[in-house]
Parts: sequence; structure tokens; C-alpha cells
Amino acid sequence: MTNIYVFRLGHRFSRDKRITTHIALVARAFGAKAVVFDIEDNRVKDSVYKICDKWGYGPSGDFEIFYEKNWRKFIKDFDGIKIHLTMYGFSLSKVKDKILKDIKDKNILIVVGGQKVPGEIYNLVDYNVGIGNQPHSEVGALAVFLHELNAKPLDENEWNCKKNQGKIRIFPQKKGKKVAKR
Amino acid sequence: MTNIYVFRLGHRFSRDKRITTHIALVARAFGAKAVVFDIEDNRVKDSVYKICDKWGYGPSGDFEIFYEKNWRKFIKDFDGIKIHLTMYGFSLSKVKDKILKDIKDKNILIVVGGQKVPGEIYNLVDYNVGIGNQPHSEVGALAVFLHELNAKPLDENEWNCKKNQGKIRIFPQKKGKKVAKR
Repeated sequence: MTNIYVFRLGHRFSRDKRITTHIALVARAFGAKAVVFDIEDNRVKDSVYKICDKWGYGPSGDFEIFYEKNWRKFIKDFDGIKIHLTMYGFSLSKVKDKILKDIKDKNILIVVGGQKVPGEIYNLVDYNVGIGNQPHSEVGALAVFLHELNAKPLDENEWNCKKNQGKIRIFPQKKGKKVAKR
Repeated sequence: MTNIYVFRLGHRFSRDKRITTHIALVARAFGAKAVVFDIEDNRVKDSVYKICDKWGYGPSGDFEIFYEKNWRKFIKDFDGIKIHLTMYGFSLSKVKDKILKDIKDKNILIVVGGQKVPGEIYNLVDYNVGIGNQPHSEVGALAVFLHELNAKPLDENEWNCKKNQGKIRIFPQKKGKKVAKR
């Protein structure tokens, strides 16, 4: 596995600002390189980049958000393994080993949609994967998937690299808050 | 471990409807028995109960949402292990084994807040746990924590129990959607 891209499909400008922001922040925190949206929404972009300025641009040092109007073409042309998170797919527990083998040395694109994704998406991807087969949250599904994918616990060590470029760093505590500014 | 309760602290009526709904749906999908809010918001309650009517009331068959104005008292009096999810806490990877041992045969209360939780919460709980030490999402954090806690993959088998009471059931597919109605 080299780089993780997350495609947030079907962002609705009027309703999804906060959910989409959470999707982007989860992507960043769990090591994705970029989040792609099909709808331009600078409110989301600004609020995520504000976090990046303060906390860093991720393990790769260059986390970014960009827009792609033509999602169909983007997904089709993506060079790597494409995974759509959907409760209708095979459970992660069933396909995880195969996916981990498949993505070795390849880029991966994770597609997360809202309630209504176009039916053709199921055929554009390599895997349709359910984080369970019950309705819950694209934010929660993405977090669990990335957590499993990294196959290692996300902790402060991953983020203490120089590349990260953040101004704040947390020193984990039993109680209370401790941070250092650089 | 017997029952999992999730306390959603600091719900803001004007802003958090969808995020809080996602928290409740994640709690339900990952096996919690109840979600508790400190602010009454029937919009959230209605939309989650609509999902329950269609998809079932969880493995225990009685998933519910209720309000507790006095969160301080509720958390203090809770009979079981109390865990606050916060990026300032020790990483899950460091405390997971201890927690799993601790919660055996006990109820657990997971507290998730928004950006600003009262400082005293850190002292009211048994554990302050970070799902990583970077800012992301209380939805994502809750999902990963419950996923790790259950220590088994969430899949259709867990939900195919008679107790579940749902009207719809998914048959996981490689591509497309297949459901059965009962």
C-alpha cells in the first residue's frame, strides 16, 4: 500500500457540511493522503485546512482536499485498488485478508457515499465492503476501515515525525490535557 | 462486559443534529444498549427510532435513547466502568488490554463530547482514552472504540437473531444490494 485516497461521493452543500468535515478529519487522522469531493464546498476545505495548520498535514506531510466534478471518470481512471464502503457489501471480516494482500504496493481509493449512491458505483470498484451490515455512519465506517487497514494502532508516535508540520503536539495523559507547541 | 451505554455530552440543538444522529446509529450498530443525551432533541430520537423500526432494535432487542439533564450525577452514579473518549488521553493501543480485563461482567459507559467538554469530566471517569492523539471525529472515535471493544467483527450474523425485531435484513453481496423483508 502506498497512498490512501478517500472519495466523498454525494456531498450535499445544504446538509452535509459537518458530516463531510468529519469524514475529511478522519481521513487525515488515520493517514490518508487526500480527500476528494464531487461538490465544491470551501467551508469544509477551510475548516479542515485550519486543523492541518495547527496539528499538521499528516504522516505524509502533504494531506490535501480537492474537487473532481466527474467522479465516474475519476474512479474509473484511478490507478490502484478501489473499495466502496457500503452496508450491502461483504463484511470486512470476510474480505480483509484478501484486501490487505491486494493493496500491497498499490494506491487505494476508498469511496464513501451518503444514503443514495448511484447504482453503477458497485460495478466501478474492486470491492464493496460492509463495516457490518446495518445502517450507521459513513464517518464511523471510514474510521473503522482505515483503522483496520493500517493494521497498527494509531497513536502519537505516528504523528511525531518532522514531516508532519504541526504546531501542536499532545502528550497523552491519564487525566487532563497536556500539549506542547513548537 | 454486560451492557454498553453511550453518553453524548454537549449536544448543541442548532448544530449537532446529524452528528448526534450518527453517534446514536453507530452506538446501535455496534451493539450498545442505550444512548443518553444531556439535551432533549426529538429530531434525533425520531430519526434513530425510525431506523430501529425498520432494521431492528439491536442485538439486545431493546436499544433506546433517553435524556439526563444532570450529566454529572448520571456519570458519577453509573454502576460500571466509565470511559471518556478524548484525544488527550492514553492511546487505545496502550490501555486496551487493561480495559478489556476491567469491564468483564460490568456495564460500561462511554462518554463522547464535542470540542469543549467540562474539565471535570476527566476526573469523573475511570479512563480517558484517545483513538489516536489527533483531532478527528467523535463518531469515528466511538466506532473504532466499539469495534475494538467487541473484539469480534461486526457482521450480519450478530444481527440475525430473533430478538433484533427488524423488518429488513441484508444478504451481503459482492456487487449490488440484496435484502429480505420479514
